[in-house]
Amino acid sequence: MSYHLAARMQRLKASPIRSILSVANRPGMISFAGGLPSADSFPEAASLRFEQEDLQYGPSDGEPYLRQRISDELRARGLTVLPSQIMILSGSQQGIDLVAKLMIDKDTPVAIESPTYLAALQVFSLFGARYLPYEIEHLDELNTDTPPALIYTNPTFQNPSSKLYSRLQRKKLAALCDECESVLFEDDPYHELSYEPGEQRPVCSYIKQTHWVYQSSFSKTMAPGLRLGYLACSEALFPMLLKLKQAADLHSSRISQRIAMQLLDDYAAADRVVTLQNQYRSKRDLFDESLHRHFADLATWSVPAGGLFFWLTLKSPMAISTSTLLPQAIDAGVTFMPGEPFFADGRQHASSFRLNFSHADSADFDRGLKLLADIFRGAQEL
Amino acid sequence: MSYHLAARMQRLKASPIRSILSVANRPGMISFAGGLPSADSFPEAASLRFEQEDLQYGPSDGEPYLRQRISDELRARGLTVLPSQIMILSGSQQGIDLVAKLMIDKDTPVAIESPTYLAALQVFSLFGARYLPYEIEHLDELNTDTPPALIYTNPTFQNPSSKLYSRLQRKKLAALCDECESVLFEDDPYHELSYEPGEQRPVCSYIKQTHWVYQSSFSKTMAPGLRLGYLACSEALFPMLLKLKQAADLHSSRISQRIAMQLLDDYAAADRVVTLQNQYRSKRDLFDESLHRHFADLATWSVPAGGLFFWLTLKSPMAISTSTLLPQAIDAGVTFMPGEPFFADGRQHASSFRLNFSHADSADFDRGLKLLADIFRGAQEL
Repeated sequence: MSYHLAARMQRLKASPIRSILSVANRPGMISFAGGLPSADSFPEAASLRFEQEDLQYGPSDGEPYLRQRISDELRARGLTVLPSQIMILSGSQQGIDLVAKLMIDKDTPVAIESPTYLAALQVFSLFGARYLPYEIEHLDELNTDTPPALIYTNPTFQNPSSKLYSRLQRKKLAALCDECESVLFEDDPYHELSYEPGEQRPVCSYIKQTHWVYQSSFSKTMAPGLRLGYLACSEALFPMLLKLKQAADLHSSRISQRIAMQLLDDYAAADRVVTLQNQYRSKRDLFDESLHRHFADLATWSVPAGGLFFWLTLKSPMAISTSTLLPQAIDAGVTFMPGEPFFADGRQHASSFRLNFSHADSADFDRGLKLLADIFRGAQEL
Repeated sequence: MSYHLAARMQRLKASPIRSILSVANRPGMISFAGGLPSADSFPEAASLRFEQEDLQYGPSDGEPYLRQRISDELRARGLTVLPSQIMILSGSQQGIDLVAKLMIDKDTPVAIESPTYLAALQVFSLFGARYLPYEIEHLDELNTDTPPALIYTNPTFQNPSSKLYSRLQRKKLAALCDECESVLFEDDPYHELSYEPGEQRPVCSYIKQTHWVYQSSFSKTMAPGLRLGYLACSEALFPMLLKLKQAADLHSSRISQRIAMQLLDDYAAADRVVTLQNQYRSKRDLFDESLHRHFADLATWSVPAGGLFFWLTLKSPMAISTSTLLPQAIDAGVTFMPGEPFFADGRQHASSFRLNFSHADSADFDRGLKLLADIFRGAQEL
């Protein structure tokens, strides 16, 4: 049976994360693959409430009470926006879809960090992006002969590298966007998962002229099952993103919005974030110690100042990609995230990989990392 | 400040429904515009529960228990599908977005009913569809010199016309899809809102060879605030739609999925649908009586056998479009839905309009319809 599909479908890859997650839930599996928050950090489901009126259709841009509350939060982060510039999303993945629809045609130049968030690559590629990869330390090397229409960045505990941009780097990136008349798309889901003092002011706050979209998520500090995130953007973009949101799903769950507000309003909310930071800082330190025991001879890494990931690079690049070791690791009972899918030009970066430290039980760190180190060591000896 | 937008943004219109809904909530406004269920029909929010595990990330295709339950329901509707062919959606608007991404490039031929659901037009146009309009009574007249890649249909209490396709019409449409190798996209949100015995078996169940997508919603029989719908599709399409779903929002709210399952499992669920049907049948009949009092000289209509709408056509076509009367109606305290946005070639069909009977209080039917009739009559006398 022949049938016609849209040309973009040739460019659509499955998210490797979602495929790995489906095995990560097998009993006994130690998962360092996904970016799942620790279930210990979730609120008690039985304590969460919503209202009768939340059952009816609601506004596409979101509940006014929540948009007001988020504009206060963003002001505290250093980004001054009106509630009318805030849109509630069905998770921040949706923001990537909306911005891609807004900006990207086939061959639209899009600047991305190298490496960058793989599910952003998935969406940008679907819409036909032509990539201009950059590293923030070498921003001058970004080829702007064709100025990027869109610059995507994840400057605060970047996924996967866990990099934290300095103030100077933030200002330089904002200045570049202004100079190239590029729209800046700042993705900031890990903002509150900070374990050391450091620069976190949104890059968007340094923009002087050009248009911008900033987004963040409730998945990491509340609960991913809510499927709730939000974006803020420069005024001219808002009506267009709102129409795209209408067309995508009319509006986001009002039940989730009510619950998010309850959790934000909770007198213990600030404490909850501090508790989460303490919990994750401890896990990070235990993970680092365990890495030193098993990977010191094999790989290099930096200790992340926030976020959910260690990004490791093998000392001796292997002839084979780390992704080819994944089936062997899964058989052994441990999962990790190969580095390739985080790069637009995947195969050139086969010797990096990402390990998550928030989800697995810290009692399993040693066993899981030893299993993994043995597999890498075995492959290097081949 | 200049900036580059995707070409598709030239084709994106706001949903007129969403714009009208924003005024429909004004105190005292009698709204016949939207497709809002009656809030009386909603379950008690305080009785709805979800589980602790629903707070974590979940599967992109949806919760296995709910997919199983829906496959049973679809079998009862006459469509035999495995749970592995079911995908949970964040409302059925999302299904339109996913199918458009799957199928539609600029100038892809898409057959649509005339009139058709306006938010489907909104999405199909965004992706660049070239329309081949048809009326089911004159399906032979559909020009298939260029066979449509996609045929979109809403055969059961169609929005806006409330048409119910006969069995023969269903078979003919399925045969046409097979013959043209067109993918059939059947949108069936009103399936359970049936007030008379009649044919409702999915057109997809008559497909012999070609690919198909069927979708339905929990918004009309449970609560729109859940933002939950589902699709079923032929096996070859599933993996592609799943990747598109991942890219769109990772997965749908697990809280909403748990609540939907609770409502389906409720011993009173069957009764709840019957109660809803009885409630809406009564409202429909009251609305029809009121229409006869105020619109008999002005317009023609059929009594809908199901769904949420009356579709009226003015007896004397006016020089002006019904949409130009909307501001006047809103000033007078009543809203309706002009017919134009339901047609790909809007302006040729300016003398039709849609009235919803489920949402307004039936005590307001007479006052609202008299206000509206006076406005139409005034405009015709000009």
